[in-house]
Amino acid sequence: MSSVVLKFSGFKSHGVVVMCELEDPAAKYFSPKVTERERAAFEAGIALGMVIHQFTGIPVRFPEQVKLLERVIEYAIMSQPFKKKSAVRVSIEIPSSRSPYAYTTLRSKNLDVTLTVEYGKAVVKARLHYIPELDYTLAYIEDISEKSGEVLTGEVCR
Amino acid sequence: MSSVVLKFSGFKSHGVVVMCELEDPAAKYFSPKVTERERAAFEAGIALGMVIHQFTGIPVRFPEQVKLLERVIEYAIMSQPFKKKSAVRVSIEIPSSRSPYAYTTLRSKNLDVTLTVEYGKAVVKARLHYIPELDYTLAYIEDISEKSGEVLTGEVCR
Amino acid sequence: MSSVVLKFSGFKSHGVVVMCELEDPAAKYFSPKVTERERAAFEAGIALGMVIHQFTGIPVRFPEQVKLLERVIEYAIMSQPFKKKSAVRVSIEIPSSRSPYAYTTLRSKNLDVTLTVEYGKAVVKARLHYIPELDYTLAYIEDISEKSGEVLTGEVCR
Amino acid sequence: MSSVVLKFSGFKSHGVVVMCELEDPAAKYFSPKVTERERAAFEAGIALGMVIHQFTGIPVRFPEQVKLLERVIEYAIMSQPFKKKSAVRVSIEIPSSRSPYAYTTLRSKNLDVTLTVEYGKAVVKARLHYIPELDYTLAYIEDISEKSGEVLTGEVCR
Repeated sequence: MSSVVLKFSGFKSHGVVVMCELEDPAAKYFSPKVTERERAAFEAGIALGMVIHQFTGIPVRFPEQVKLLERVIEYAIMSQPFKKKSAVRVSIEIPSSRSPYAYTTLRSKNLDVTLTVEYGKAVVKARLHYIPELDYTLAYIEDISEKSGEVLTGEVCR
Repeated sequence: MSSVVLKFSGFKSHGVVVMCELEDPAAKYFSPKVTERERAAFEAGIALGMVIHQFTGIPVRFPEQVKLLERVIEYAIMSQPFKKKSAVRVSIEIPSSRSPYAYTTLRSKNLDVTLTVEYGKAVVKARLHYIPELDYTLAYIEDISEKSGEVLTGEVCR
Repeated sequence: MSSVVLKFSGFKSHGVVVMCELEDPAAKYFSPKVTERERAAFEAGIALGMVIHQFTGIPVRFPEQVKLLERVIEYAIMSQPFKKKSAVRVSIEIPSSRSPYAYTTLRSKNLDVTLTVEYGKAVVKARLHYIPELDYTLAYIEDISEKSGEVLTGEVCR
Repeated sequence: MSSVVLKFSGFKSHGVVVMCELEDPAAKYFSPKVTERERAAFEAGIALGMVIHQFTGIPVRFPEQVKLLERVIEYAIMSQPFKKKSAVRVSIEIPSSRSPYAYTTLRSKNLDVTLTVEYGKAVVKARLHYIPELDYTLAYIEDISEKSGEVLTGEVCR
């Protein structure tokens, strides 16, 4: 069979992390030279590209709107493949005037996004936030690692 | 003075609707031939164009995500000038599979948006929803009218 | 029949502007109180909302990219219903550094958009551009008017 | 110095590929565990996430619009860091009717995007296109490799 297996969920059993295999039906379209870490890095990049280009531009006037925006972006991240965690913080200055034109729009520099991708044994923690030194909202990889543990299939995973 | 006044908030006093004037600092950029009704129709159009082109494309996998999306779109509408009300309903089929690729994305045909614009005495109720007969997600004006009542300035409005 | 006719194309014949009728299959969804001018203002608003929320955010690094962006936005405007003309100018400062991070993104304040909507006899000329006095990229109606002329159907229009 | 060097441009000299170093001012924000290949995969992901979430939704009515869209997407890709090549093909069915509502909008399944990222010695060729078997527009890595050659600094690179 050509598709690479993906360990979708893990749990502890007698102190050993046990991972259940789930097939990745798209794996066969990737070059076989791609490692699990490279794949996880690629998926993290897609997620951050999505966040910037989907959500910037939203009109913002109400303080209570900000928390909702954070949740909506987190859910969008988690909707795409192989995401394990996401945390979004929006820091935005809302004009205090009551003028009809006193609102702002979400910009990439208002975003602080952290997300974790797991693909097989690879784990990538990626982040998006504004770096004053670069005057640039940078998408970068904070950590990349590999889980150790056993991979199981069968009854225990169903 | 060139700018048209805008009645931003209303309340009842002895059975008469009283509207407070608020200046529209952008009014002078509009042709003086534009009526309040036309202006309200224009602002309603901007809002619906915003909704379609800002929010479609969001990845959706979780049922609890849908209510959040509705609120976030409503707040975005209310953030722009002269909006009085907005109600958004998202009807979207979420795949039940646990596959990594089993999610969907928000499309305009998933949206049912109703919003009210008030500009001066003009009130426009506009809507966006999918019309099977046209196979098209139509933005249209459900109602357009003019409020009657007194317009006040001064102490009572501050 | 409930649908309002729309004069889609015009030409001059013996010095008289002659307009050919084309049905608007969506007219019946609009309140009958909506005038042709109000409808044209609404369609102009949709177009400008689309432009802002569809195109801002595009990464820009190359001077030759700017003219292409202008054309692409014009075509997008003309693709939607009842547009007669569009002209887009993008004024954007591109960093001169060769650094990988030395690029910019299209923002609404970089846009100067003019478009004409015709609906029936109504003509709306709308514009989007940055107004320093308001520190706001304003969508507004520069002109609204009604064409005079005869409306024809039949052979001559086919 | 903490930042990793990046070979920005290459040329052949006496049959040997010579690469000039360019500093990556953002390298220090990445985990030192990230390889050049992983970084290149990450940047490729960002680009494809950008394409999908920036460009889908554009209204399309005119056949001549399609080539312009392809160029505009290619330029957007090349504007972001470390892109070496991009090729975009848009396959979209445009309704032939002259109805005001007879247009379509760009969807991810209309896109076939190929792009090459180079980061240091790593080269990633990534692709986005619709896979009927998955009924999904898949972003994937077609090839990943490392260039061999010498890396130079100094006079020859200026």
